[in-house]
Parts: sequence; structure tokens; C-alpha cells
Amino acid sequence: MPSISNKGTQMPSSPIRKLVPYAEDAKKRGTKVFHLNIGQPDIKTPQVALDAVKNNNIKTLSYARSEGSEEYRIKLANYYKKNNIYVSANNIIATTGGSEALLFTIGSITDPGDEIIIPEPFYANYNGFSTASGVKVVPVISKIEDNFALPKIEDFEKLITKKTKAILICNPGNPTGYLYSKEEIEKLKQIVLKHDLFLIADEVYREFTYDGLQHTSIMSLDGLEQNAIVIDSVSKRYSMCGARIGCIVSKNDDFIATAIKFAQARLSPPTYALIASEAALETPQSYFDDVKAEYVERRNTLIKELQKIDGVKVANPKGAFYCVAELPVKDTDDFAQWILEKFNDNNETVMVAPASGFYSTEGEGKNQIRMAYVLNKKDLIRSVEILKEALKQYNS
Amino acid sequence: MPSISNKGTQMPSSPIRKLVPYAEDAKKRGTKVFHLNIGQPDIKTPQVALDAVKNNNIKTLSYARSEGSEEYRIKLANYYKKNNIYVSANNIIATTGGSEALLFTIGSITDPGDEIIIPEPFYANYNGFSTASGVKVVPVISKIEDNFALPKIEDFEKLITKKTKAILICNPGNPTGYLYSKEEIEKLKQIVLKHDLFLIADEVYREFTYDGLQHTSIMSLDGLEQNAIVIDSVSKRYSMCGARIGCIVSKNDDFIATAIKFAQARLSPPTYALIASEAALETPQSYFDDVKAEYVERRNTLIKELQKIDGVKVANPKGAFYCVAELPVKDTDDFAQWILEKFNDNNETVMVAPASGFYSTEGEGKNQIRMAYVLNKKDLIRSVEILKEALKQYNS
Ligand SMILES: Cc1ncc(COP(=O)(O)O)c(C=O)c1O
Ligand SMILES: Cc1ncc(COP(=O)(O)O)c(C=O)c1O
Repeated sequence: MPSISNKGTQMPSSPIRKLVPYAEDAKKRGTKVFHLNIGQPDIKTPQVALDAVKNNNIKTLSYARSEGSEEYRIKLANYYKKNNIYVSANNIIATTGGSEALLFTIGSITDPGDEIIIPEPFYANYNGFSTASGVKVVPVISKIEDNFALPKIEDFEKLITKKTKAILICNPGNPTGYLYSKEEIEKLKQIVLKHDLFLIADEVYREFTYDGLQHTSIMSLDGLEQNAIVIDSVSKRYSMCGARIGCIVSKNDDFIATAIKFAQARLSPPTYALIASEAALETPQSYFDDVKAEYVERRNTLIKELQKIDGVKVANPKGAFYCVAELPVKDTDDFAQWILEKFNDNNETVMVAPASGFYSTEGEGKNQIRMAYVLNKKDLIRSVEILKEALKQYNS
Repeated sequence: MPSISNKGTQMPSSPIRKLVPYAEDAKKRGTKVFHLNIGQPDIKTPQVALDAVKNNNIKTLSYARSEGSEEYRIKLANYYKKNNIYVSANNIIATTGGSEALLFTIGSITDPGDEIIIPEPFYANYNGFSTASGVKVVPVISKIEDNFALPKIEDFEKLITKKTKAILICNPGNPTGYLYSKEEIEKLKQIVLKHDLFLIADEVYREFTYDGLQHTSIMSLDGLEQNAIVIDSVSKRYSMCGARIGCIVSKNDDFIATAIKFAQARLSPPTYALIASEAALETPQSYFDDVKAEYVERRNTLIKELQKIDGVKVANPKGAFYCVAELPVKDTDDFAQWILEKFNDNNETVMVAPASGFYSTEGEGKNQIRMAYVLNKKDLIRSVEILKEALKQYNS
């Protein structure tokens, strides 16, 4: 029997995946499961995007241009301009989700054995894309006590080797909800310029910033043109995760020319999804205002309810729609499985993501979970109530 | 300035890409360009697939399951059964096009430095996916004199090393149009079993077989269960290239479990496209009969017209919708550019794909071109007329 590759063996599976069978079993037993474990919002997709697809006149569903049509990229550049990011259509490649943008970026700037420094906890699939490219993720820890702020620049500097090709940040952060300040981005700029590294910013949650705070894109900094690569996506911005459209943005022409070769090999992003994404650019500001108001209320609710539980510590997120909480348990992998497998409160339970999957350093985050506030206020309150009851029983 | 990767530098660009600006310039000069260069059929997508998308009731466009829904995979298994391929939903992973199926397959079975043997000429993007994975393509030449039949098994055997992980065939072939016989597939079975290799068959043109010939899938052979991996796609079958849905089919559970990890990392195939693809399975047989009749007529027309030109040699394709022709010129890269840049016949010209891009061996195929018969009969006749006139002028 032929064997699979080392790379394939090392590919991580999703940190939530192992819990899925327990959630399915719970549902089979008639238990209602509140899903705080995934970044799939319940928010409606803008009608203008849905309608564009419903009203399409396609007769032959053809390949789109590998990097997306020029019209779409011009419109995207216009969207960025409104966000203080001055780029042209030629600086943009449309991709199949932010996921593919990450894959093409890593492929374009790294060879097997190279290293990328990432503040942890981080979006778990950074591990998958790195492993797929034979690249080593070098974590630099950020702490719940600091709300997961940027680690000290010395901490980064200690980790830089000849193999280091890039620093990758997620801003605002999944799973932390942390929003980097302008000063933090400036510090990152200094270090990447000094060491001639790429700075990759995954800005798929750009739109989701709270408490009057502004998002600072790495693309808005002077002098970083050759180093900055932005990863973006329509998934979260327009609650259209299933579309699968994202993009790469960079002013580094060599990099863009290289990434386009990866895009050409896979021929085309999905055509229907491009129609939806182009139309979504017409979404009225009121949609975003409503969504933001909704998330702020959910966040406030979630944080307030969590803080009522003894022994729970929670970082206050300023962006995205996740938060990381420390629980009074030793091993949240075990706990998260236990609430699905052994526990219910009035036939209801919750599914959360154990945070260990978001850390690369072995043993870190064992007492933390990530919660996505993608449910309505009432369900969130009920979810935390269930969590509280579960902690009480689990710890006795 | 940070530098791009060796891998990125080595990524091939599309063999047609360098001609695109010349075609665009020709159009700007008012010259009509007949496109025989791409595998984008003009055939209409089945109405049932288009309607399913137009009639969708989505409110929140959510992620689909990473491997595709169970319903879809059950229906797909049913489609395969009708094609003498007995597989279950668990043997199938839905992917973003056959392209992604190739990428996940190569990632799952190879590490950087490994080798895959492929009969050449082959689909050019096999190079791209291999390069992206750090894998070396080892070509084994097939000849226009033999209609591009399977090379001798000794020719394969000579190339097998410790690094060889798989043999990859395309059946029916792009660019050759060659349809492997049952005997040829049996020979491949013997060699992969003997050397413990995977046999990957790209069967995206399965439906397109002519002259009463039957397609033999590698999945229909007993004893090959642990070695066989089929790459498939809705792109050509239903003329819905822009959907971006394909799949991996294999009975090797370790392989499927590994490929699913790659699928999870990128979250989801495109949701609208899955709707179209699921509905497309209801396409009536009459659609395929019509399409096949159309392609047979086009093929016959193209071959007949080409054979009238002095010095042109053409392999008679039994499947897919491509043919490779040898022209009485030294360098078809130069010729293909010349017909776009310097030539026109009554303000009309043609774009063809120089075949060198489909060979991995340097210098092979320099006097060959690939033509896709994706145009109607009238346009095909006119295209060959233009080609004939161009050859006359070019050679004088
Ligand atoms: C931080 C981050 N980046 C990228 C992605 C990928 O999203 P997509 O491929 O849907 O654009 C996600 C999805 O959850 C994410 O949370
Ligand atoms: C032989 C072959 N395999 C795979 C593909 C990839 O097609 P897709 O990604 O659209 O399924 C193509 C497209 O032309 C092809 O010709």
C-alpha cells in the first residue's frame, strides 16, 4: 500500500473537529447545542449581493479571470480608498476566500524550511497553510493579562533567524478580538524594515471595530510598500462565508506577479461568488452600522455574563467577534468534550472551542476557550448560564 | 526589499499567458480573434443547474461542509455508479474545482523532492501544482505518430526511483484527446502495484468519448483500491467551468483522511457552486447526447480541414475536446505570436496554444500546437482557413 506524505501526516486537523461527533451525538439525544465554537455569523447577507446572484443572466458559466476581473478590482480599490488604503486594481488579486490568499502568499514568499513568526494565540489554519507549504510557524506569545496586545518587539527580535521570511498578524484578531493600535503597527514596521521581512496582515475583520476605535491597516503606512501584504475576504464583512471570495493586496510588484502564477494554476475564483462580491460593494452604510451595533451589544452581553462567573477571566475584545476566556479548569479540551458528552441543562448545552488549538507552543492556553459571539443576545445569555452550571458540576 | 521564494520564482506561468497581450492588441486594432487556445466551451450550462442557483432561498450565505454535504456526496456516488464506478459518499471529497483536487492530492502523497511520472504532453498546470508542492515532474514521452497512446511500460519503469510517489494520467487527455484503452489501464495497474505507487487519473473529460468508445476509469479495476485516486470536476461535464466544483475519489481511507485535513484548512467549497453542481446531477441524458454529437461534428470538421493543409500532421482525438497538430514551422511559440501580432486575413485571426508548454522535456513539441474545438463548426472552418493562409505567409 503506498503511503501518504510526512506533510500529510503533519497537517493539523481543525481544533474543533474532534468535538463534532460529540455534538452530533448530543443532538441525536435531543439536546439542543448552542454553537459558540465557529466563526459563522448568523447575520444576514446584504440583500444587494443575494439579489445579484438571483438575477444573473448566465447561459454558460465560464471561468473568471484568474486574478478577478478588472472592474471588480477597480471597485475594490475604491472600497479600500474609503478605508484610507490607497491601492490600484493592479495591487489586488481576487482569491477563493482569505484562505487561498494565505496559501498563495505563503507559497510566494517561502520555501520549505522557512519560518514565519506569528503572535499566538492565532487563527488555527495558519498552521495548516504553513504545514502545507513546509513552513515552520514560530510563535511569540501574547498574554490574556495584557488583553493579547502585541508582544514586546524584543520578543520578536529574539526569534528572527536567517530562515525568517515574514511576521504574520491578524488585526483585529481571531481568536483574541484584539485590535492593534497605530503605535503597535508602527513598531512592526520598524522591525520588518530592519530585518527585510514581509509583514502580512490578515485584516478580514477590518470592519468589526468597537468603542469608537479605528482600524489601522498596514497598507496605510508610508515606507512599508515593498513589505506589506494584506489578506482580505468578503466572508465576514458581508456575512457571506460561503461565497469564497477573498483577496491579496500588495504594492510589491514582484510579489503580486508571483502570486498571480499561483492564481493562474488554479484557473479562476468562483464566478457566482464574484457576482455576489461585486454587488456587495454597494451595501449601504446602514447595514454595517446595524451589524456593528448588534455585535457591540452581543459582546457587552457576553463579557458581562462571563464576568459574573467565579474564576473566569476574560479579555475584552475591541474587534472581530471572538473572545478568549480563562476558565477555572485544567484542561478545556476535556471540559469542552465533557459538556457535550456528559452534561446538559434542561436538555441544552454549548459547544466552545478549546484554545489549545490556537497556540503553537505545547501546553499553552490549556485553561482557555474561544467563544464566537455569533448568536443573538438571548441565546448568548442562555449559553453562559449553561456554561456556569457546567463549570459548577464539572468542578465538583 | 524582502525577496520572493525560489518556489515562487519557479512557478510556471500559463503557456498561453504570454500571448494574451498580443491578442488584446489585435482586438484593439479591430481584428477578430478566434479562440482555439482555451478549454472554455461555448456550450450552454444545463438549465436545471442555472435555475437552482436563480431560485435559491439563501438568507445567510454560510460555509458548506469542508468535504461537501453528505447529500451531495451520496448523489455523486450514485452518478459514479451509473458510470461503473462503485464508491460511497465517504470515498469522495468535494473540492474547489479539479484544480484543488490535484493540489490536495499532491499535498497528501508527496513531500518536497518527491517525483511524479506523467506522460507528456500533459495539462500544463500539473507543473504548477507540482512546483507549488516542491515536487518534480518526471515526463515520459508519448508520440504524435502513435496518436499519443500510452508509452511502453519499460519507459515508465526506467524512470521509477525511490522518490517516485505516483503516476499521473489524464484520461481522456488534455491536450492530446487520447482515450486510454482498458488494456493500457491494466498495464498501469500492474506497474503501480509492483512499485507501490499511487495511480492518479484526471478524468474530468470522462463524459467526452467518441466513435462508440467507452471510458475506463481506474476506479473500476479490482485490486487497485489502495492505489487509485480519481480527479474529477463539473467544469467540463456540465460546461460550468466558473462554478469551481470538483472532487477527489478514492477508496484509500488514509489518503481521504489526509486530504480532508487540507480541505478543512480552507474551510469550504463555494456554496452557490455546490447548489449548481448538485442540481446538475439531474441533467437529462439528452443534454449529453446533444453535446457529444456537437463535439463529434466539430472534431470531424477540424480534423478534416486540418488534413487538407500541406505539412500538417494531426492526431485523431477519441475524447475530450482538444487536438494536437504538428505544423510545418520550427517554433510554434513564435508562429502563434506572429499570427496575432503581424497577421490577419480580412481582419480576422486565430489564437492557438503552442504545445511546448504541455511538455516538460526541453525542446519537445516545438512544432506542435494544441487546438480546443470549443467553437461552432462555421467558426472552426474559418479558423483553419485563417491558419492555412497564415502558414503560407509565415513560411514565405
Ligand atoms: C482570521 C481569519 N483569517 C482568514 C479566515 C479565512 O476565511 P475565508 O477563507 O472564509 O475568507 C478566517 C475564517 O474564519 C479567519 O478567522
Ligand atoms: C485535464 C484537466 N484537469 C483539470 C482541469 C481543471 O479544471 P477545473 O479546476 O476547472 O475543474 C482542467 C481544466 O482545463 C483540465 O483540462
